[in-house]
Amino acid sequence: MTDRYASFVRSAAGRTLVKRLGLPDPPRLRRHTPGDPLLPGPALLGAATGGRLAEPVGALLTTAGVEVRDPAAAGVEVRDPAAGPADGGRVGALVYDATGVTDSTALRQLYDFFHPYARSVLPGGRVVVLGTPPEECATPREATAQRAIEGLTRSIGKEFGRGVTAQLVYVTPDGDDSTRTGLESTLRFLLSGRSAYVSGQVLRVGTGRVSAPADWDRPLDGQVTLVTGAARGIGAALARLLARDGARVVALDVPAAGDALAEVANEIGGTAVQLDLTAPDAPDRLARHLADRHGRVDVVVHNAGITRDKTLGRMDPDRWDQVIDVNLSSQERINDVLLERELIGDGGRIVAVSSIAGIAGNRGQTNYATSKAGVIGLVRSTAPVLGGRGISLNAVAPGFIETRLTARIPLVVREAGRRMNSMAQGGLPVDVAETIGWLAWPASGALRGNIVRVCGQSLLGA
Amino acid sequence: MTDRYASFVRSAAGRTLVKRLGLPDPPRLRRHTPGDPLLPGPALLGAATGGRLAEPVGALLTTAGVEVRDPAAAGVEVRDPAAGPADGGRVGALVYDATGVTDSTALRQLYDFFHPYARSVLPGGRVVVLGTPPEECATPREATAQRAIEGLTRSIGKEFGRGVTAQLVYVTPDGDDSTRTGLESTLRFLLSGRSAYVSGQVLRVGTGRVSAPADWDRPLDGQVTLVTGAARGIGAALARLLARDGARVVALDVPAAGDALAEVANEIGGTAVQLDLTAPDAPDRLARHLADRHGRVDVVVHNAGITRDKTLGRMDPDRWDQVIDVNLSSQERINDVLLERELIGDGGRIVAVSSIAGIAGNRGQTNYATSKAGVIGLVRSTAPVLGGRGISLNAVAPGFIETRLTARIPLVVREAGRRMNSMAQGGLPVDVAETIGWLAWPASGALRGNIVRVCGQSLLGA
Repeated sequence: MTDRYASFVRSAAGRTLVKRLGLPDPPRLRRHTPGDPLLPGPALLGAATGGRLAEPVGALLTTAGVEVRDPAAAGVEVRDPAAGPADGGRVGALVYDATGVTDSTALRQLYDFFHPYARSVLPGGRVVVLGTPPEECATPREATAQRAIEGLTRSIGKEFGRGVTAQLVYVTPDGDDSTRTGLESTLRFLLSGRSAYVSGQVLRVGTGRVSAPADWDRPLDGQVTLVTGAARGIGAALARLLARDGARVVALDVPAAGDALAEVANEIGGTAVQLDLTAPDAPDRLARHLADRHGRVDVVVHNAGITRDKTLGRMDPDRWDQVIDVNLSSQERINDVLLERELIGDGGRIVAVSSIAGIAGNRGQTNYATSKAGVIGLVRSTAPVLGGRGISLNAVAPGFIETRLTARIPLVVREAGRRMNSMAQGGLPVDVAETIGWLAWPASGALRGNIVRVCGQSLLGA
Repeated sequence: MTDRYASFVRSAAGRTLVKRLGLPDPPRLRRHTPGDPLLPGPALLGAATGGRLAEPVGALLTTAGVEVRDPAAAGVEVRDPAAGPADGGRVGALVYDATGVTDSTALRQLYDFFHPYARSVLPGGRVVVLGTPPEECATPREATAQRAIEGLTRSIGKEFGRGVTAQLVYVTPDGDDSTRTGLESTLRFLLSGRSAYVSGQVLRVGTGRVSAPADWDRPLDGQVTLVTGAARGIGAALARLLARDGARVVALDVPAAGDALAEVANEIGGTAVQLDLTAPDAPDRLARHLADRHGRVDVVVHNAGITRDKTLGRMDPDRWDQVIDVNLSSQERINDVLLERELIGDGGRIVAVSSIAGIAGNRGQTNYATSKAGVIGLVRSTAPVLGGRGISLNAVAPGFIETRLTARIPLVVREAGRRMNSMAQGGLPVDVAETIGWLAWPASGALRGNIVRVCGQSLLGA
C-alpha cells in the first residue's frame, strides 16, 4: 500500500535524481479535510462572449468563500513562461465559461484566456471549463466547437502537472433551479480536495430532484446509505467517509468478512448486514432489513466486486459466472427489488462502481471487464428510466487505487499502472470514496448517467 | 520510418532474447493484397440463442469464399490451453452473433463459445462479435448485457496477441437491405488484411444509401474522390490505395508541396490541385474545379492536417489559429460549399481524419487535440443531418503511424508510442488508408457517425 518511490522523490536526493533523469515526479495531492477552503488561492473566472454561466458561477463561488478575480482586473500576475515558478499572484483555479462558443473559429477565446495564466496555477490547483452538451447544441457548428473543448481540457490535464486537475463540465441549456444546485455541487467537488485524483473528466449536469444541504460540510446529513462490500478497501473507506459527511451507513458484506465488517460498522455507528449478494433470497432479505430498520434507503452504493483473473482459454466457468454475478447481475436484481417495493424513491441516489478495465478491457480479465462494461451499460440505459422517478444513477470507474489487491500485483506492472497517469501515482481508496460520496449528495441530483473516472487521468482508455 | 526492433525480434537471436526477457513481441501483421482470400483459415460461426444475424452472416461469408464451420461440428480442434501452438484444425476467425443476449446472465454463452477456441485462432486471425446497439435495445437489461460485450472484445484484443484483432459490431435491429450490405462491407473489411492495424473497436451499422460493387476487389470503381493533404505520408498512401481500388483521385495539397503532389497524381493517373485550404476563396475555387472537371465529387477525404506543438503557456497565437483552421474550420467551410452547390449528393461519402490526440488529449498539443476533438464533434453532430441527404460521414482516428512526422519524435518517446498497443508496433500509412477507403465504399453507406481508431488497440484513450 505504500508508494516508496513517491516518498523518495520528495527527499532532497530524490528531487535531484528526478530532475537529472527526467523520472516521474508524483506531486503531493491536495486532499480534503472538513473545514478546508475550496481552493488554495483565488479563482480567475473568464467567459467567452455571450456565455450564460459566468454570472451565476461567479455568485456561487463567492458564496462558497472563493475569492473570484476577473482576468482583465489587476492582481493576478501574468507569468513569463520562461521564468521559474514563484508564489506571488498565483491562482487556485482557472474557471472558464465557454458556453458562448458557437463556432470553431471562436475557440480562440479559450486560448486567449488560458495562455497567459498557464503557468500561474498553484500546485493542486484546478482548471474547470463549462460548456454546452454537444447533443443539446442548436447547430452542428456549435456542437463541433463544444466537443472540441474536450481536446483542450484533456491536454491541459496532461500538461499542467503538479497535481493540477482539469475537467470539462457540460451544463444543459434547458436547466432549472436543480441545474444550478447541481452545478454548485459539482464545482464544490471539483474545486475542493475531494477530487484530488479525478482529472481529464467530462461531466454532464442536467436537471433532477435536488436539495441543497444546510451545511456543505455535512452534505449527506441523515441520509440512509447502503454500502455493499463495506468490510475492506474502497468500501470501508467509503463507509467511514459517508459517516463523516453525515450519512447513516448500512454496511454490507459477505458473512466470511463479518469481523472486519463489524469493526467498520461499530467505528462509524452504522449497522452491519452479513449477506451473500448472489444468494437467491439476498434481494428479499436486504429489502426486508432496510424496510424494518429504516423504512427506506436514500442512497445505494453498489461497491461489492470481485476479480477472478485468468486468460480466457484457461478460465473455468465458475470464474466467469461468479464475477458476472457479483459485479453485475446482483446489482440488477437488487435495484429491481428496491424499486419495486419503493424502498428507494424520489430523491434517491444509486452509485455503481465500474472500473477502468470496463472501459479499456484488460488482459486476463475478460470476465471482470465484461462485468464492469456492463455496469456502464446499466447506468446509461437505466438512468433515464430512474430519472422519471426522481432517482439519480451514476457510476465511478476507479483506475489504479492503492489497496490490498493492487499491492499483490508484480512490481514492474504495478509501477507502470501507478505512474501512467497525470498524477504519476496511484489513488487512495478515499479518492474513490469522495467521488461516490459527491454523487450521493442530495444536492447532486442533476447529475444523471455520468461515468466518472477516478484514475488521475490514466493514459489507459478506450 | 523503419522499425529496427521489429526486424530484430524476428531474427533467431531476437526471438531468444524476446522470450527470455519478456520483451514486446511485435507480430508480422497480415496486410491486404488484391486477390487475397478474406481469411487465412475457416471461420467458426456461433450464435447465442435467438440471435438474428448468424444466418445472414453465414450466407454472406460463404458467398465471400469463406469456409464457415459450426462450433458443434467436427473438424475444429479444441486446443488444450496448456499445449503449445500447432497448425492442425486452427481457424482464421471466430465470429459470434450475440444479438440473442438480452440479460447479463446470458453472457455466459459468449464464454462458452470463446473459451474452448481461445487458443485455436491462427496468427493474423480475427474475432468479430455482433450485437445490438445498446441505445436501440428493447429493455435496460438487454442494453446492459449488450454494452457488457464491449469489455469482452476489448479484453480479447489485448489477450490473444499474434496480430489477432477483435471488434464489436453493433447492427441495428431496425435494418433494411442497406444494413445487410453495410454488414457485408464491414465484415469484408474486418476479416481481411485491410484492417490489420484496427483492433478493439466498436462499430455501428445502421441504414443508409448503399450500392454493392460489381467486384469487391474494386470497391471504389469510378468514384470521384478528393483527398486533401495528398502529397505526402498518409495522404499519398491513401491516394495510391484509392486508385488501386478503382477511384478517380483528385489529389490536393498546398502549392509548396506541388512537386510531390504532381508525382503522386501522375503515378496514379489522377489530377492534382494546388490550393491552400485556409485561403478565403479556397472553398469556392475547389468547388469550381470539381464542377468543371468532374461535375461532381463522390467521396471527400479531409486528410490535410498540421501540428504546431508547444505547451499552452509557450504557444504563440499563430500556432493555435493555424492548427484549428487547417484541421477543423476549413473542413467545415468546404463541406458547406460542396453541400450548398450540391456537388456531393445522394450516396456521397465524407471521411474526416481525427487522431488519438483528439480522444485522449496530449501534452504540448492543446491546439492539435482541440482541432481533432472538434473533428469528432463535427462527425457526431453532422452525420445525422447528412444522413437525410443520403451522405455518410465518418472519421478515422490514427494512433502511432510510421511517417516522416513520427520519425522525428525522440527515441524513447517514440518507442513507448510504438509498443503501447496490442500489436506492439506502429501502424503504416496504408493501414489508415485502407480504413478510410472502406468507409468511402459505395457499399459502406450504412456506416454513419463512426469514429474508427487505427491504432493497433493503443493503450491510450479517454
